[in-house]
Amino acid sequence: MNTVKWSAIGIGTKNQEGNWLEIFYPKDLINLDSNIIEEASKFSADDFETPLDLSKEIVKELSTINLNDYLSDSSHLVMIVLREDKKIESVPEAYLKLHLLSYREVKPNSINLDNIFAMLPTVAWTSEGPKDPDELPEIIKDRKISGSQIHVYSLDKFPNLTDYVIPEGVRIADSSRVRLGAYVGEGTTIMHEGQINFNAGTLGKGMVEGRIAQGVIVDEGSDIGGGASTLGTLSGGNDLVISVGKDCLLGANSGLGISLGDRCIIESGLYLTSASKVEIIDDNNQVLKTVKAEELSLKPDLLFIRNSLTGSIQCKERKKDVNLNEDLHSNN
Amino acid sequence: MNTVKWSAIGIGTKNQEGNWLEIFYPKDLINLDSNIIEEASKFSADDFETPLDLSKEIVKELSTINLNDYLSDSSHLVMIVLREDKKIESVPEAYLKLHLLSYREVKPNSINLDNIFAMLPTVAWTSEGPKDPDELPEIIKDRKISGSQIHVYSLDKFPNLTDYVIPEGVRIADSSRVRLGAYVGEGTTIMHEGQINFNAGTLGKGMVEGRIAQGVIVDEGSDIGGGASTLGTLSGGNDLVISVGKDCLLGANSGLGISLGDRCIIESGLYLTSASKVEIIDDNNQVLKTVKAEELSLKPDLLFIRNSLTGSIQCKERKKDVNLNEDLHSNN
Amino acid sequence: MNTVKWSAIGIGTKNQEGNWLEIFYPKDLINLDSNIIEEASKFSADDFETPLDLSKEIVKELSTINLNDYLSDSSHLVMIVLREDKKIESVPEAYLKLHLLSYREVKPNSINLDNIFAMLPTVAWTSEGPKDPDELPEIIKDRKISGSQIHVYSLDKFPNLTDYVIPEGVRIADSSRVRLGAYVGEGTTIMHEGQINFNAGTLGKGMVEGRIAQGVIVDEGSDIGGGASTLGTLSGGNDLVISVGKDCLLGANSGLGISLGDRCIIESGLYLTSASKVEIIDDNNQVLKTVKAEELSLKPDLLFIRNSLTGSIQCKERKKDVNLNEDLHSNN
Repeated sequence: MNTVKWSAIGIGTKNQEGNWLEIFYPKDLINLDSNIIEEASKFSADDFETPLDLSKEIVKELSTINLNDYLSDSSHLVMIVLREDKKIESVPEAYLKLHLLSYREVKPNSINLDNIFAMLPTVAWTSEGPKDPDELPEIIKDRKISGSQIHVYSLDKFPNLTDYVIPEGVRIADSSRVRLGAYVGEGTTIMHEGQINFNAGTLGKGMVEGRIAQGVIVDEGSDIGGGASTLGTLSGGNDLVISVGKDCLLGANSGLGISLGDRCIIESGLYLTSASKVEIIDDNNQVLKTVKAEELSLKPDLLFIRNSLTGSIQCKERKKDVNLNEDLHSNN
Repeated sequence: MNTVKWSAIGIGTKNQEGNWLEIFYPKDLINLDSNIIEEASKFSADDFETPLDLSKEIVKELSTINLNDYLSDSSHLVMIVLREDKKIESVPEAYLKLHLLSYREVKPNSINLDNIFAMLPTVAWTSEGPKDPDELPEIIKDRKISGSQIHVYSLDKFPNLTDYVIPEGVRIADSSRVRLGAYVGEGTTIMHEGQINFNAGTLGKGMVEGRIAQGVIVDEGSDIGGGASTLGTLSGGNDLVISVGKDCLLGANSGLGISLGDRCIIESGLYLTSASKVEIIDDNNQVLKTVKAEELSLKPDLLFIRNSLTGSIQCKERKKDVNLNEDLHSNN
Repeated sequence: MNTVKWSAIGIGTKNQEGNWLEIFYPKDLINLDSNIIEEASKFSADDFETPLDLSKEIVKELSTINLNDYLSDSSHLVMIVLREDKKIESVPEAYLKLHLLSYREVKPNSINLDNIFAMLPTVAWTSEGPKDPDELPEIIKDRKISGSQIHVYSLDKFPNLTDYVIPEGVRIADSSRVRLGAYVGEGTTIMHEGQINFNAGTLGKGMVEGRIAQGVIVDEGSDIGGGASTLGTLSGGNDLVISVGKDCLLGANSGLGISLGDRCIIESGLYLTSASKVEIIDDNNQVLKTVKAEELSLKPDLLFIRNSLTGSIQCKERKKDVNLNEDLHSNN
C-alpha cells in the first residue's frame, strides 16, 4: 500500500446532472486511520486515483468506521485519499485542500493548488443551499410566484469560509468577504472592510480592515488598515509573492507591492508599488540616496511616507513601536 | 393600435396599504405577443397609460396566454405596455427598465430613467422577502419574542441583481454589491470589493474589483482593480459620463474622473480627476508639455502614473499589452 | 429610591451554558415608568446593581406592566435600571447603550462605553439566529448532513443595526456594514461601500459611501465619498476624536486624520493625516505659508488638494457651494 499524504470523507451536493457542486469535510473525518483506508480501498477501482463515492451500500459494508449518521437523501458522501500533493483534478480534491488551509492544517503557499479554477464549478450560494446557477432562474420564478423567498448570497467558485469552517479565536465582521481556503490565525479580527482570499491569510493575532490577496501572508501582530490593498499573484501577471512581517502597520487606503520585513509602516494613503522609486532619508530628513522599492523588500523597521510638500516617496528607519490597541484586538 | 416599445407581465409584492413594493419580470414574459396585448387592452381603461393589475378574474378571461400557474394568494400580477421611452411614472415601469438592463436587452445610458428615485419606494429586503420599512419594527419584535429570526439585508430603493436576474456566464462574489439594473457582460467576474450600480456595467469579459458608478460603462477585456473608483453622474453634480475602453487596467485604489480610450492604464493608488494637470512625457521620461486630464479623454494607449520622486501626475504612450490572467478570468 | 438614568426591559438569547449572547430592547420598553421600577425592585437583590432576569414567575406577579405577550420558551426577559452612566459591567448594559445610540436617544461620544469590548461576547450571527461560536461546528455538520442550510453572516461582538433598530428616514444599501450602536441621522443614505461603526454616525441628511470609524461624527449635509476613510480612536492608539462639519465633501478614496469645519472639501484620492504639512495658497495659487494639517482642524470653508504637478498638499479658502444631488439624497 502506498503512502498517504491526506485522506478524508466529505458530505456534498450535486446538481441535477449528478456533478459535484461542493463538499464539506468535518474536522473529525480528515486524516483517516489507515485501516479505514485499507478497507475502503477494495471499493475503489483505481486505488483512490479518483474520489470514491460512498453509496449507502458501501457505507453498510464498512466495519472500520460507522458512517450511518452521515447518510441522508439530500447529500452525498465521498472519500478521498491523496498519495501525493499533485495538481488538482477533481472537485472533492479542490475542496479538501481549501479545508486543509482553513483548518490551519497547512500554510498558504505550501500546497499545490494548480488547476483549482478549472476544477471548481461556479455555484449559486443561496438561502436554500448551494445550487447550480443554470437551475436558479426557474427556482427564483417559483419562489416569487408563491410569495416566498430565495436569497442568492454569491455566484462564485468559492463559498464563504464560515459556512464550512469556524476557526477558533477569530472575529469576522462580514463573512461574505472571507473565502473558504483562507488561513485565519488565532486572534485575528477581520473588520467589515477586511477581505481574505483563498491561499492567503494571517499567522496569528492581528487586525484586518483591508484586502489580503491570494498568496499573501501576514505575520502576527500586524494591522492591515481600512481599504489597504496587497497585490496578489492572480492579477497583473506578476509572479512575485507578497508577504507582511510581524508588527507591521499598513495605513488606511494604502497599498503594497513589495514584501515587508518586521515592524514596518506604510503611511495612510500611500501606494508603494515594486517599481516606485524611494528616497532613503536620515533622522534629519536629508536624502541619502534613491532606490527602487523592491530593493527594500523584507527589510525590517522601515517607515514609508509620501512627503506632503515634495510629493516624493520617502523611507526612513524607525525607532518607535507600533502599539495595536489591546482592547480592540482582544477576541475573548 | 399604437406601436409598442416594451411590454411585460410581472409578479410583485404590495405593502399593507396596497402600494407596490417591487415587481419581478420573468424573462419569458417580456416582449409579449401583440395578440396578448390586444386582448388585454380591453381591461385597461386608459390603453395601458398606467400598469394594469391582472386580477384572478382577468387572468381567467385571457385566452391568448395562460397565467394560471402564476396566480397565488401572496403575490400580484401586473401587465405593462410602454408605447414610448418616456420618464418613469410608476413602480412597475421602474422595475421593468431595471430588468431590461440586467437581461441585457438594453445598454446603460440608452433608456430614459428620469424620475426613477422618486418612483421607487425604499424597501426592506429581508430573509422573509420584501417588506415596507414602516412595518418592520413590529415584525422584528415578534420574531425576537418567538426566538426566530428575520434578517434585513438592505433598506434600499434597489434590490440585489441576483435575487431577480442571473446573467449567464458571470461570477459575483458578493451579490449585495450589485444592484438590479446593472448590466453585467458575459465573462465578467465581480470580486468581493467590486460594485456595480444600476444603469452601469461591463460589456463583456472583464474583472471588477472596484466600483462602477451609475452611468459608467466598461468595455470588454478591462480590469477595474481592488477599491478603484469611477466617478458617476449622481454625486457631485457633474454631468460628465465616464467610460472605460477595451483592455484597460485601473490599478488597485486608483480613481478615474475622465473617460479612457482602449488599452489605457492607471497606476495603483493614482486618482486622476478631470481637473488634474498632467505632464506628457516621452520614452526618455522628458516632459513634453502639460495638459488638463480631460484633454486626454478617450485617447487610447496611455499610461498614467504619479512620479514617485517629483509627485507629478505623468502620462506616456504605452507599447506593452496588459495580459489579464486567463486562468482567473475563466468563468466556466 | 435613587434617581434613574436609563431603564429598559429586553428580550435576549443565552448560550447552552446560560450566558447572554445578545439582548433586543423594543422601543416601547425603554425608559420605564417609575412605578414599574418600584414594583420590580422587590425582586432585585441588589437594587438593580446587576440586571434582573424576569422569570415567568416574576412576570406573573407584576401588576404595573403586562409582559405576558413577551414570554416564550426560546427567549429570555431581562430588566435593567442604570442609576448613573458608569462603565459597562454586563451584556444587557452593553446592548442597552448600543440601542440608545441607534434609537437616537443619545449622541455618539456622549455616554460611557468603557469596557464594552470586554463585556460583549463574540456571537455567530446566523440565519437561525444568534449562536455561540463554540456550538456552531456541530450545527454546521448537522445541517450539511440533512441537506439543509445554516448561513453565518458574521462572527462579531456587534450585530447589524437593522436586525435590531430600523431608524426612520434612512437608506442602508448593505446592512452588514452598519453596526448596532451606529447613530444614523434622518435623511442619511448609506451606499454599499458605506460603513458606520458603533458610537459614530451622521447627525442628519447626508450621503455615506465611505467609512465612519468609532467616535467619528458627521454633521448634516455632508457627503463621505466612496471608499473614503476617517481615522477612529480605536486603531493606532490616537486619542484624537475626528468630526466632520456641515456640508462637507470627502472625495472618493480620500482620507481624513483631522476634524473638518463646515463646508470643507477633501479632493478625491487625497489622504490628509494630522501630521501632513500643508501649503496655504491664495486665490492666485501662490503659497502663503506652510502649516501642519492639525492646525487647520475645525476651520470652515477650506479646500484641500494635492497639486498634481508639484505633489504638495495645498489648502485654499473656498467660495463655491457644494451641491449634493437632491434627487439622489431624497429618502421618501
